[in-house]
Amino acid sequence: MLQSYLFTKTKREAPKDEEAINAQLLIRGGFVDKLAAGIYNFLPLGLRVLRKIENIIREEMMAIGGQEILMAALHPKEIWEITGRWKNFDALFKFKGIGDKEYALGATHEEIVSPLTEKFVFSYKDLPLYLFQIQTKFRNETRAKSGILRTKEFSMKDFYSFHADLEDLDEYHSKMIKVYFKIFERCGLRDVTYLTVASGGAFSEYSHEFQVVAPQGEDTIYVCQKCKLAINEEIKKENSTCSDCGFSEFKKMNAIEIGNIFKLGTRFSEPFKLKFKDQNGKEKLVVMGCYGIGPSRVMGTVVEIFNDEKGIIWPEEIAPFKVHLLYLGETKDKADKLYENLQKLKIEVLYDDRENSAGEKFADADLIGIPWRVVVSEKTGKKFEIKNRKEKEVKLVDEKELMKILSE
Amino acid sequence: MLQSYLFTKTKREAPKDEEAINAQLLIRGGFVDKLAAGIYNFLPLGLRVLRKIENIIREEMMAIGGQEILMAALHPKEIWEITGRWKNFDALFKFKGIGDKEYALGATHEEIVSPLTEKFVFSYKDLPLYLFQIQTKFRNETRAKSGILRTKEFSMKDFYSFHADLEDLDEYHSKMIKVYFKIFERCGLRDVTYLTVASGGAFSEYSHEFQVVAPQGEDTIYVCQKCKLAINEEIKKENSTCSDCGFSEFKKMNAIEIGNIFKLGTRFSEPFKLKFKDQNGKEKLVVMGCYGIGPSRVMGTVVEIFNDEKGIIWPEEIAPFKVHLLYLGETKDKADKLYENLQKLKIEVLYDDRENSAGEKFADADLIGIPWRVVVSEKTGKKFEIKNRKEKEVKLVDEKELMKILSE
Repeated sequence: MLQSYLFTKTKREAPKDEEAINAQLLIRGGFVDKLAAGIYNFLPLGLRVLRKIENIIREEMMAIGGQEILMAALHPKEIWEITGRWKNFDALFKFKGIGDKEYALGATHEEIVSPLTEKFVFSYKDLPLYLFQIQTKFRNETRAKSGILRTKEFSMKDFYSFHADLEDLDEYHSKMIKVYFKIFERCGLRDVTYLTVASGGAFSEYSHEFQVVAPQGEDTIYVCQKCKLAINEEIKKENSTCSDCGFSEFKKMNAIEIGNIFKLGTRFSEPFKLKFKDQNGKEKLVVMGCYGIGPSRVMGTVVEIFNDEKGIIWPEEIAPFKVHLLYLGETKDKADKLYENLQKLKIEVLYDDRENSAGEKFADADLIGIPWRVVVSEKTGKKFEIKNRKEKEVKLVDEKELMKILSE
Repeated sequence: MLQSYLFTKTKREAPKDEEAINAQLLIRGGFVDKLAAGIYNFLPLGLRVLRKIENIIREEMMAIGGQEILMAALHPKEIWEITGRWKNFDALFKFKGIGDKEYALGATHEEIVSPLTEKFVFSYKDLPLYLFQIQTKFRNETRAKSGILRTKEFSMKDFYSFHADLEDLDEYHSKMIKVYFKIFERCGLRDVTYLTVASGGAFSEYSHEFQVVAPQGEDTIYVCQKCKLAINEEIKKENSTCSDCGFSEFKKMNAIEIGNIFKLGTRFSEPFKLKFKDQNGKEKLVVMGCYGIGPSRVMGTVVEIFNDEKGIIWPEEIAPFKVHLLYLGETKDKADKLYENLQKLKIEVLYDDRENSAGEKFADADLIGIPWRVVVSEKTGKKFEIKNRKEKEVKLVDEKELMKILSE
């Protein structure tokens, strides 16, 4: 994409009403725009990142058998009354439509997916079943000071699994933990993400969260210094030992929750009469699990973790582009040609074709944070300057070497 | 995809609470599920169709310079008060959040895109500018009897153009009409879609609608019998002549509106102070246009138009799959092999690998309406039976001929 074509412009100053680093850098870089407290518009660069994260999640969810659907965001009151959550789910936006009919905006979808599944599941032969969606969720959040980490409207992947018994759920749950780590690996967060035992709320004794260690995190976790399993402060008792390895040394850390998985059991299949006939013709309740990841929260977390004083440092698989191509001085023809050649190789390039100063171009490239910066200038002759955003040194390479590095 | 894997099942009977053909067939085929009046869930087959329509639109919008963004669905009251539409836009869902802050759910996005653009447009050099999004819209609809044609929550592509003057808007507007016809061509609707002059509402004298002639259509249009330009009943005067060719013979027809385009002029740039400096440094108001298409409405319209007593007949480019592969009798191994070979050629196949009867398989294939049905059976020897959903005759072809037909 030509940078001259991109309608957003970078900003030198961070907006004064944003405390969070993610919001400051994402707004300065032209990734997002703040509409109101806790409400953001995604601009072209930001939407590219968000879609890449969503697509990684989609691929991995399909790879473990998930069927993608898209459930409604408008929920009739009656369906939330069946589980008692019309009154008990604090963050529901509620309102009336034509004929005084009452609705909630989808904050989560157990109330929708359970009766939907009930229409199609009859026998043990229909199980297990895995459904997911990637959709905008709405929550009436009180706190909205964390940029895109905690918003009133956000992208969410919610996955629901349906099983004949608890053993099958347990097995799938263990598989999902591995898949989640694969997703966070692809998003560049694997090394800072900890599986964390947390409260199960009304559903079960425990749930599992995926917590990214970050100084700005709202959560506090205790990481076992032997096996790295963490415990959320909300359930940590004094002098407790690790439930996995028995060790008793923990390190207290701030963290951001980027995913959570619950064994729902029959909490929702019971009120919605979601039953099946087993191999002996006996009617049983379906056993459920649910598994969430917020793509926009992952995006914000990545920015919180990977940045320096100059800007964002995107992990390669979720960067808006792979290469940021800059030209300096009278080298536009040469840069145009390179842009064309990179596109032929299907390498994603943001090409700064503007007549701005070298200083402005370098500052923009550092702020936007694309992994590979390639500079065409008069002083490098037939060679090109290449630099990784994570590193300090610059390399001079010919076109063949350049293409080799960028095709890896 | 294996049909045994798909969690939806077809239904013989249409749901009793649905009058519209589109809802009856889409629910029977397992494309959508009704949650409440005017609210639907999209199931795997339906989501595939919806995404294909959205992607056709996205491609064409990018091809004429559109930059994709994603604006918020939660809108603060204040922003809708600036244009006076908080009170005047009937179909707005309105509600209160934390701290009694009032919101509307996005029914259209002029109130969001105008102040957003104001942050990035300063000079004539920043114009023209084209922004679009594909997003869920919400409207508090009174009528909800047309299946997915008119719903309280629906997929919408809204595109906004920003120009230095009216001439530039006019020129772009004409280009957009051609692009819209290309989109409807790709969706299989070109021959039944009429450009229709309609009321401009509060914005301008006229607007343009794209109307698909269908007996069930809620709108009435008068089609000029010479040049095919149509006039919406709401602005048709007695004894009027065609504004394009001067002819005075019209045919009255029912139609479904699947797109509309407006010359907004300065209706929104004025209240939001969306200005730019022209080449002489003089400050002027930006001139705007807006261009809508509802992908879910296109999907419903296609089903209204293309069906027979057995089911849906999808146009090829938006069909959930290109090929429906069925096996009969003891031929599963042969069909498995063909499925594998089709997938190698990247042809999208739904493979009915179930042990159901031939009658059930044929009925499902006709109901689901995938363009090419391929049958593997004992009586055809080394050949395969191929049939197009639109035609009656069946052909017997060898694998080479089959692949040739399906690769076209």
